Amino acid sequence: MEFSSKLLERAVNEMSQLPGIGKRTALRLVLHMLRQPKEQTLALSEALQTMRKEIKFCKSCHNISDVELCELCANPKRNTQIICVVEDIRDVMAIENTSSFKGLYHVLGGKISPMDGIGPHDLNIETLVNKVKEGEVTELILALSSTMEGDTTNFYIYKQIKDYNVTTSTIARGISVGDELEYADEITLGRSIVNRIPFESSIKL
Amino acid sequence: MEFSSKLLERAVNEMSQLPGIGKRTALRLVLHMLRQPKEQTLALSEALQTMRKEIKFCKSCHNISDVELCELCANPKRNTQIICVVEDIRDVMAIENTSSFKGLYHVLGGKISPMDGIGPHDLNIETLVNKVKEGEVTELILALSSTMEGDTTNFYIYKQIKDYNVTTSTIARGISVGDELEYADEITLGRSIVNRIPFESSIKL
Repeated sequence: MEFSSKLLERAVNEMSQLPGIGKRTALRLVLHMLRQPKEQTLALSEALQTMRKEIKFCKSCHNISDVELCELCANPKRNTQIICVVEDIRDVMAIENTSSFKGLYHVLGGKISPMDGIGPHDLNIETLVNKVKEGEVTELILALSSTMEGDTTNFYIYKQIKDYNVTTSTIARGISVGDELEYADEITLGRSIVNRIPFESSIKL
Repeated sequence: MEFSSKLLERAVNEMSQLPGIGKRTALRLVLHMLRQPKEQTLALSEALQTMRKEIKFCKSCHNISDVELCELCANPKRNTQIICVVEDIRDVMAIENTSSFKGLYHVLGGKISPMDGIGPHDLNIETLVNKVKEGEVTELILALSSTMEGDTTNFYIYKQIKDYNVTTSTIARGISVGDELEYADEITLGRSIVNRIPFESSIKL
């Protein structure tokens, strides 16, 4: 692409570094900014800058936070004995939306993935194991996505903590509510039969 | 969406103002930035800021430029008698890529569209008409997209300049090179027959 302006070219190149945004999309976005009032672009650029410079990660659960200890960890009403282990902050937001969990979280910051060069020491696993060692945690819910990397990470964590006095659980896999059986994949359907639950407990929800 | 950080929330809100970027995509992009080195986000934010503050529009053709007169208008090798009228800078880039036009451009900055509240006075039409009035232009190529708005804009410009000594042309509409006739829409196919060209001139290209 030949640009008539170096400033434009630089802005497009920087925008196209973002995942899923190619040169054409970047150009479309940048031209849109040029049509909008100047203040809008300055506000965006300022928001990104401040966020990148000042954002903190909660020292306990590694969730994104503006203060040292995030709102969830600082909330005295949460059950500190149950910890839900998730991959990133989006999972925390998704689970919080369901209002079905009142314990604390622990954000790993990714999954073990040798293909991408991510090993256990790149993730927040050590601090999780330390929490378990201190003995205040009674249950760990492993809520990683059910992929090869998720299973590897689950297993790695399990091996680290299995000698301590803590229950480990994983979220239920099964047919989504509202889905038709005939379209479900075999593995999910198979697991949903093996891990069937008493009918009485299903109608409580 | 409930955010654990105001800084994060602000960044996501600003990003989601961009066209085609919803809250979820914005969150994905912002979290990606947090995983990358700080310098990358600062470079992006600086590039957008500088661009928005310092970018200029060529005083002659209204193309985006870093200087008062853009490279194309300042190039003495270009034919200043033929002006190609386009909607925005992306069209200039697309036509320049074909290397088939050696005249100058005139960027309108949009199309007349009463539905979006864009009238002739919001576009760079007056400066175009002035160029024609000065009498140095022999041909205007109207290269707007062939939509209702494009046709309206073409017709508006035509009415303004038809009394001056200038040839007006529009780019050819027809079947794309490599396309099969049976899949072409009726209007395009019809026009391609009405506006057929001598076979000898088609094999020159």
